[in-house]
Amino acid sequence: MKTKSKNFIESQIISGFHSIEAVLLDKPELINKLIISASSENKRHSKIVLLARKNNVEYVLSDSKYIDNLVHHTKHQGFAADIKPLATFSEKDIKPKLKNLMKSNVLILDSIQDPRNLGACLRSALGFEFDAVIINKDGSSPINEYVFKTSVGAILNLDIYYVTNLSRSINTLKDIGFWILGLDGNGEGSIFSEKFSSKTAVVLGSEGSGIRKLVKENCDHLIKIPISKKVESLNISVAAGIIMYELKKQHIN
Amino acid sequence: MKTKSKNFIESQIISGFHSIEAVLLDKPELINKLIISASSENKRHSKIVLLARKNNVEYVLSDSKYIDNLVHHTKHQGFAADIKPLATFSEKDIKPKLKNLMKSNVLILDSIQDPRNLGACLRSALGFEFDAVIINKDGSSPINEYVFKTSVGAILNLDIYYVTNLSRSINTLKDIGFWILGLDGNGEGSIFSEKFSSKTAVVLGSEGSGIRKLVKENCDHLIKIPISKKVESLNISVAAGIIMYELKKQHIN
Repeated sequence: MKTKSKNFIESQIISGFHSIEAVLLDKPELINKLIISASSENKRHSKIVLLARKNNVEYVLSDSKYIDNLVHHTKHQGFAADIKPLATFSEKDIKPKLKNLMKSNVLILDSIQDPRNLGACLRSALGFEFDAVIINKDGSSPINEYVFKTSVGAILNLDIYYVTNLSRSINTLKDIGFWILGLDGNGEGSIFSEKFSSKTAVVLGSEGSGIRKLVKENCDHLIKIPISKKVESLNISVAAGIIMYELKKQHIN
Repeated sequence: MKTKSKNFIESQIISGFHSIEAVLLDKPELINKLIISASSENKRHSKIVLLARKNNVEYVLSDSKYIDNLVHHTKHQGFAADIKPLATFSEKDIKPKLKNLMKSNVLILDSIQDPRNLGACLRSALGFEFDAVIINKDGSSPINEYVFKTSVGAILNLDIYYVTNLSRSINTLKDIGFWILGLDGNGEGSIFSEKFSSKTAVVLGSEGSGIRKLVKENCDHLIKIPISKKVESLNISVAAGIIMYELKKQHIN
C-alpha cells in the first residue's frame, strides 16, 4: 500500500463531464458532494448517475444556474463536485520511494505558471508512465480546476511531489543514482542523439524564462530539441511531451 | 518569390507584445494600423517603437482603455494591431508546390477545434520545418487572435493550405509520392518502431473524436503513440509535437 505524506493540495470544486467521470472511475472516495444538473445531456447524465450509484456516491440534482454560481463559469456541462484535498508527496519521500528502482523516469517542473500547460504535462507524465513529477511549491501554478481539467484526471493516478527546494531535491535524486538532464534552448547536447541513463530525471523550466539559474547549475547535462531558427521555442507542454516520449521509447527498446 | 493563391484568412486585430513583435519582425507589411499604449512597460514599449520605426510602420499612442475596447479583453499588454488577411494556399497549390521535393513532411489537421491546440500545432510544424499544413476549412477553428498568440506568430512563416475536401487532398498527395500516416489510438502500428517514408504526410484528428471515418479510410497506415491505459489520450498538440519530432529526427538521421 502507498504511504502518502500529509502534504495536501487544497480541497476544491471541479466540474465538467470528463473531470467528474475521472474522479468517479479512479477515486470516488474523494468526493464530498456530487451535483448533477437535471438538464444535463441525457447520455452523459445516465453515465454519471450510474457511476455514482455503483460507487455509493450520493448526488443531488440541481438546476444549471446553481452550478453556474458554484463554479463561477458556465462550461461545467451540468456536472460538479466538491472533492477532498489530493494527497501528494514531499521531499523526504523521494529517497524511500525511488531509491530501489532499477529503471526510472522522473519529471521535474520548475515554475510552470500556466495551468493548461501544467495539466498537459501531467497528462503526458502519466501517459508515459513516469514514476514521479516533482514541482516547486512556490512559483508554480497551483493544482486547480483548470489543471485537473487539462490533465483529464491524470493527477489522480500520478505521484506528485511538492517541494520547497528543487536544487536540494535534485541532489537527493543524484544520491540515489539519477542522471539529471535539463531541457534548455541553449543546451549543448541534442535530443536527436542523446542516450539516456536508465534512471533519468528531466528538468523543464517556465514558459518565459526557462530553468532558473541555480537549478540549471545542478543539472548534469543540458540538452535541446533542435528546431528552426524561425521559432524561439516550442510550447512547454509540447517540449515536455517530446522529451518524455523519447525517454519512454529508450526505456522499452 | 512565392506565389500565393487568393484564398485568404480574414483580416483581424491581434494584440500582446509577442504577437506584435512577431509581425513587425516577419511581416511588417501586413500591418494596417499599430496602436501602442503610452503606459505599456518601458523596455517593451521602446522595443516595439524601434521595430516600427525601422520598418516604416506608422503607429499611434493611445491609453490602455482604448485597446481594451478594441480587443475585447485586457491581456494585450498595451500593444495591438489591425492586420491584413494572411495569405494561404488552396488545394490546387498542393501538386505544383510539393511534387518536386525529394524529402518532405506534411501535417494534415482534421477538424481541430481548440484555437490553443491549433496554435501549438502550427508552432511545432514551423519548429520542425514542415513544408505544409493542410487544414479542412469547415469544422476547424478559424485562424484567429488566439491561434496567432499560441503559435507565437508561426503562422506568418508557415505554408498553410485551406481545403474543402481532406480526402481529395490526401489523394493528391498520394499521386505525388506521399505516404499517408494517420495517428490513431487504435492504430495497429506503433510510433516506437515505425520507419517513415522520405515523403510523409501525417493526419491528426479532433480532440474528442479523432480522425473522421472517411479521412481515416484514405490513410495508408494507422499508428499510435503507446501510452498507459490510465490515460485515454494525450493532448492533441502534444501528440502532434511528438509525431512531428519523430519525423524530423528520422529525416536528418
